[in-house]
Amino acid sequence: MPKTPSESRTIMTDMVLPSETNPLNNLFGGELLARMDRAASIAARRHSRRITVTASVNHVAFNQAVPVGSVVTVEATVSRAFNTSMEVYIDVWVEDRFTGSRSKANDAIYTFVAVDDTGKPTAVPPIEPETSLEKDRFEGALRRKQLSLVLAGKMKANDATELKALFTGEVN
Amino acid sequence: MPKTPSESRTIMTDMVLPSETNPLNNLFGGELLARMDRAASIAARRHSRRITVTASVNHVAFNQAVPVGSVVTVEATVSRAFNTSMEVYIDVWVEDRFTGSRSKANDAIYTFVAVDDTGKPTAVPPIEPETSLEKDRFEGALRRKQLSLVLAGKMKANDATELKALFTGEVN
Amino acid sequence: MPKTPSESRTIMTDMVLPSETNPLNNLFGGELLARMDRAASIAARRHSRRITVTASVNHVAFNQAVPVGSVVTVEATVSRAFNTSMEVYIDVWVEDRFTGSRSKANDAIYTFVAVDDTGKPTAVPPIEPETSLEKDRFEGALRRKQLSLVLAGKMKANDATELKALFTGEVN
Amino acid sequence: MPKTPSESRTIMTDMVLPSETNPLNNLFGGELLARMDRAASIAARRHSRRITVTASVNHVAFNQAVPVGSVVTVEATVSRAFNTSMEVYIDVWVEDRFTGSRSKANDAIYTFVAVDDTGKPTAVPPIEPETSLEKDRFEGALRRKQLSLVLAGKMKANDATELKALFTGEVN
Amino acid sequence: MPKTPSESRTIMTDMVLPSETNPLNNLFGGELLARMDRAASIAARRHSRRITVTASVNHVAFNQAVPVGSVVTVEATVSRAFNTSMEVYIDVWVEDRFTGSRSKANDAIYTFVAVDDTGKPTAVPPIEPETSLEKDRFEGALRRKQLSLVLAGKMKANDATELKALFTGEVN
Amino acid sequence: MPKTPSESRTIMTDMVLPSETNPLNNLFGGELLARMDRAASIAARRHSRRITVTASVNHVAFNQAVPVGSVVTVEATVSRAFNTSMEVYIDVWVEDRFTGSRSKANDAIYTFVAVDDTGKPTAVPPIEPETSLEKDRFEGALRRKQLSLVLAGKMKANDATELKALFTGEVN
Repeated sequence: MPKTPSESRTIMTDMVLPSETNPLNNLFGGELLARMDRAASIAARRHSRRITVTASVNHVAFNQAVPVGSVVTVEATVSRAFNTSMEVYIDVWVEDRFTGSRSKANDAIYTFVAVDDTGKPTAVPPIEPETSLEKDRFEGALRRKQLSLVLAGKMKANDATELKALFTGEVN
Repeated sequence: MPKTPSESRTIMTDMVLPSETNPLNNLFGGELLARMDRAASIAARRHSRRITVTASVNHVAFNQAVPVGSVVTVEATVSRAFNTSMEVYIDVWVEDRFTGSRSKANDAIYTFVAVDDTGKPTAVPPIEPETSLEKDRFEGALRRKQLSLVLAGKMKANDATELKALFTGEVN
Repeated sequence: MPKTPSESRTIMTDMVLPSETNPLNNLFGGELLARMDRAASIAARRHSRRITVTASVNHVAFNQAVPVGSVVTVEATVSRAFNTSMEVYIDVWVEDRFTGSRSKANDAIYTFVAVDDTGKPTAVPPIEPETSLEKDRFEGALRRKQLSLVLAGKMKANDATELKALFTGEVN
Repeated sequence: MPKTPSESRTIMTDMVLPSETNPLNNLFGGELLARMDRAASIAARRHSRRITVTASVNHVAFNQAVPVGSVVTVEATVSRAFNTSMEVYIDVWVEDRFTGSRSKANDAIYTFVAVDDTGKPTAVPPIEPETSLEKDRFEGALRRKQLSLVLAGKMKANDATELKALFTGEVN
Repeated sequence: MPKTPSESRTIMTDMVLPSETNPLNNLFGGELLARMDRAASIAARRHSRRITVTASVNHVAFNQAVPVGSVVTVEATVSRAFNTSMEVYIDVWVEDRFTGSRSKANDAIYTFVAVDDTGKPTAVPPIEPETSLEKDRFEGALRRKQLSLVLAGKMKANDATELKALFTGEVN
Repeated sequence: MPKTPSESRTIMTDMVLPSETNPLNNLFGGELLARMDRAASIAARRHSRRITVTASVNHVAFNQAVPVGSVVTVEATVSRAFNTSMEVYIDVWVEDRFTGSRSKANDAIYTFVAVDDTGKPTAVPPIEPETSLEKDRFEGALRRKQLSLVLAGKMKANDATELKALFTGEVN
């Protein structure tokens, strides 16, 4: 039985503590990567009701420095489910300490696999996107999966039809 | 004046503590992402002699679970320098607790930017690869940079000549 | 200009890690108190747009053990603002690892004071409750404030009219 | 066989580290709440020789900011035992970095329950107060327990005879 | 003006958390070394009323494993003051979880230097031992200081009269 | 079958984070002691392929302050093996943030015991030193072991022939 992305949505709001900052007093990239992993792992568990383990991290861009004392909101949602794996899309917002205005600090995509108690991969329900943003991300997920497989040498570039179209201009 | 990759090589060997593990008693993906970020950041600093900030994380695949009590070695090396940014290639090995045999747990690629004390990007020396592995990674770095730019919508797929060849079979 | 409780609502969802548990493998009370303090402090800052410091903790009851590996959601909302202080009401839910069913683990009430950069208390906007739950909590806040003052010896029991009614059966 | 409060007394002296401070460079309320919980839990264990779990936190007032680098002493003592629960009284002192003079930063009251290995509540020895301070706190404990029960809706205000006297002026 | 050892005595009682243990579920040596350093540093500060920095660690023997869930008490006292340095003697007790019986887990000796705000060593008051244990430790401190200097190559073995007597059987 | 020191060599490079510093913004002694313990424990495990526990810490001198933001390299190597114990020699270097020049911050000597799963000491292979530095440290290890035994009252000063020579000028 399919589930919607909103059923897995996970919100993790927390402060940036002094112990998590680099010499410029901004949040360490590594600390944000760890927070995103925890939030995304919860989203994947909410979708699958299984233990979930990080399988891969796709491209993450850090667009904006996050100063100490900021309030950071990590929002993670399952964007598409494949057989035993789930793509989780993560949006990160930073809140200005004084005005309260929110701005997008970065987004990231992680892939999780659902496993049983022995660590063996196990099937997960499909995703049924509702909003147009959810539909866009659902579509993109297949292209990203092909890219992963090509880069890992597990799929021939020629078979990655969704992806190939991007470079050859042919629409499938 | 160019530098070699080995001048930036950074080795971080440490244990997996019980506080860093998931319900299967394996290292959390997020904790490994944070360790890799710290090691890669030191490698980027050794190359640039500047403050360095994480700009992006490229594809990371977690191929092998890392059980509690394992010894993990993270090895980070600058693979290529662009104008103000550096690609850092990270290899992660896990050591079996009893036999001592090492196996590759995953590899990852992060990009760092060198900044001055005000956070403004600043130029870094070029890289001169020595070994054949270093040369391979140096070559691949350009392709990966194009892929990043295309995915971020900052470069047209058609202009990413290095990358396009992968899908069209034409060698540049 | 008054604000509504929902403008300050702060959601902090996170896992219970093995390092945060007691000998029964349940979350330490102290760790949950610290998480609630961080969430409540963000809610108070969202309401006041000021630095906020914990002034007091009112009665907190731990009704349900929270086992390692659980997903815990802390939800904090400003329930009433006084001159320079804010009462923050905190609800804590625990999610069953397998069924995903949520149950209320406890609730708590913290008081925060808004301060300027020198640590001096500074005025905050009033609260305008909207839902019936918000209105109930808004009403109760005055009674709880009187109780605090009486217990701290800063108000005579006889002057705590809201509170006195509870024991004498006279409605004010 | 009754025990005295001094048999459970627990002293935890430690520094305030930079990672535990808010934007004003003072100790986070939440961090102090967690330290008090650990000290109080040890006091309860020393009294009961059982696993102890936090049942509730009574009113805690933060009267004095605790700057980074301070030495903080948390002193926890069981003030009264009921059937399976214990009230623990906590005094917190801060030591001036230069003069060494100690001042009271706050006090707090936590309640713990003794449990067996399956988590089931189990009986604890009674307390026999010795000093006049210990006797005062012992007396107050009953009043505080009634207040907890009334606020939790588990006792009618009219039956809380100890407490009622506070508001009606009648001495029982 | 001389001070007594008891004026600097520092007691740090805390639990052994699961995150601080090795594969045998006992406290890591390194974690205990860090706790002893914090307690000893506070004792040295209480004696000198200065910032204090660790100068050296003398022989530390770990005689007894400390299992997870134990209550550990670290007690640190300045045993002797030299010009700008202080020897701090540290006793560590472990409390059995069920019987409450205390046993000595190890002792250790650290040396601290008092410094001003620029990090320059600065004079500290002398120590006046009171009890016979304090007098023994006071006497031993000179022998240990000579041993440190000899081992560091800063004193000739022949000039270490206190120490030499230990090996030659001649009493000074 | 003997092993060489280089087979156990363990390199742990990491940054000094703001949460690990004292009021002078330098690395806490206790934090460095803990890092050295982790690195030395891995070296001892690599030599013995067993669980290893810290048995003692020999003289450690902190010669140089390590400022926040520094890169610290801890290098640990088994210098000599006795029956069930191993001496581990640790060198610590600090890297200047701007010039990249490395200087020796301190060295330390820890002793570890190899144990089986029940915590019982178990035999370890002998060490065969190769370089002249390794040979020097191998020789010194016996003298240090005698000193430990004499200080702990487990060996008479007169029987510590290696050590005695240091004070009597007689070469054995």
